[in-house]
Amino acid sequence: MSSLLVVKIGGNVIDNPHALSQFLQRFASLPQQKILIHGGGKIATQVAAKLGVETQMVEGRRITDQAMLDVVTMVYGGLVNKNIVAQLQSIGANALGLTGADAGVIRARKRAVKEIDYGFVGDVEQVNAEVLAGFVQSDLLPVIAPLTFDASLASMLNTNADTMASAVAAALASRFEVNLVYCFEKKGVLSNPDDDDAVIPTLTPTSYANYKATGVINKGMIPKLDNAFAALQNGVSQVTICHADELTTALQTGNTGTKLTLV
Amino acid sequence: MSSLLVVKIGGNVIDNPHALSQFLQRFASLPQQKILIHGGGKIATQVAAKLGVETQMVEGRRITDQAMLDVVTMVYGGLVNKNIVAQLQSIGANALGLTGADAGVIRARKRAVKEIDYGFVGDVEQVNAEVLAGFVQSDLLPVIAPLTFDASLASMLNTNADTMASAVAAALASRFEVNLVYCFEKKGVLSNPDDDDAVIPTLTPTSYANYKATGVINKGMIPKLDNAFAALQNGVSQVTICHADELTTALQTGNTGTKLTLV
Repeated sequence: MSSLLVVKIGGNVIDNPHALSQFLQRFASLPQQKILIHGGGKIATQVAAKLGVETQMVEGRRITDQAMLDVVTMVYGGLVNKNIVAQLQSIGANALGLTGADAGVIRARKRAVKEIDYGFVGDVEQVNAEVLAGFVQSDLLPVIAPLTFDASLASMLNTNADTMASAVAAALASRFEVNLVYCFEKKGVLSNPDDDDAVIPTLTPTSYANYKATGVINKGMIPKLDNAFAALQNGVSQVTICHADELTTALQTGNTGTKLTLV
Repeated sequence: MSSLLVVKIGGNVIDNPHALSQFLQRFASLPQQKILIHGGGKIATQVAAKLGVETQMVEGRRITDQAMLDVVTMVYGGLVNKNIVAQLQSIGANALGLTGADAGVIRARKRAVKEIDYGFVGDVEQVNAEVLAGFVQSDLLPVIAPLTFDASLASMLNTNADTMASAVAAALASRFEVNLVYCFEKKGVLSNPDDDDAVIPTLTPTSYANYKATGVINKGMIPKLDNAFAALQNGVSQVTICHADELTTALQTGNTGTKLTLV
């Protein structure tokens, strides 16, 4: 089986043009077949504010009404995605920008309303691994925006990029030896939030449960790690969480970031 | 040689959600292999105004500074393109949204500054027919936004959709028998601008020159027809200009719209 690198790049790098450009240079120079999944960044909030669309957040998650869906479709699917595609193309990487709707690659279902109505937010239902594998095998580099699609509504849906990365990696695990890397603004999962160097080198489901029980791992890291472990449980060979600046080192030496293992 | 239908849909249909939905239904139900190229519509001007970006027009053409380039990248490449892709996917057409940057399908060069500096506006240099043909042959339906790409600038470029349709049709003419249709808000090229039924049924380069000399054909129709004749001269089998509502009739009976022929 040939290998495939699936990288998720967080919104904070998207918000910093210099950091993004540096990251894309490093990413493009990696020899592997690759897929990039990007977060949204703060641009959508800024554009929404200028357009008079109010941003409502509940427990760190954006509520997506129709006006906000239009904004994230513009910003994530248009501005951010095409900016990344143009930069990659200019350095010789044959990037193809996608949302979940394009070629039907990621179908989702609008999240059911329980205590909170998240609006036009999608939970991933199905990744079309055949189409994505076809693009990769045609030497294209899929660049996926955090938007999916519900055919029954004929609507785009705002979707968490961490979840999309996990679902894409898992769907391709029967065709490739998949290496999933979450790149963000920290050096890895930290055992002390005030010490950026206190990286936990490896996590197993057991140690993860202990860190959660003691509150060392909390808040936004929990859904990220749940997604990351789900990928491993669904056949992904390797999952790493590291700083965007250390992607190359993490892949070449393994001596940075947090590695997740099942045992 | 198998046949390929290349359809350009104008901005005025994009601005009318009902008309767009009707058009996409008709378009999707056509049995041929297809490519759709869409215009921009007025949404970009509205979004630009709300964002405080001033729209400057010179001789009917938008001047595209960096702020306006960001707006058209958002609106054409994001909102409009993904709205069309989502609608087509929901009715079973396997749409793939593209800008010129995606998979490097349409490279352009930033227009040189002469009397007017159009800013980030691209003149098409090269269409990657192999990649587009590959998508079509994989039963994908490319939906192309009016944006191209200059690798030397790592920048998206705002580009006229009529020109893109002509260039795409011509580039594919050695691989397919290409039928190019420009759909817009009139029944065809008119011999009297005040009579919407005064459709000129056929135009040759000679009759076109006569209509131009007498001023019957003028203004915005001239670049559209220049693009349309260029496609014929570059091997496209058939070029029709018709109302968006009459696409099916134009293709099935040929008894509507204006047909262009070389002799």
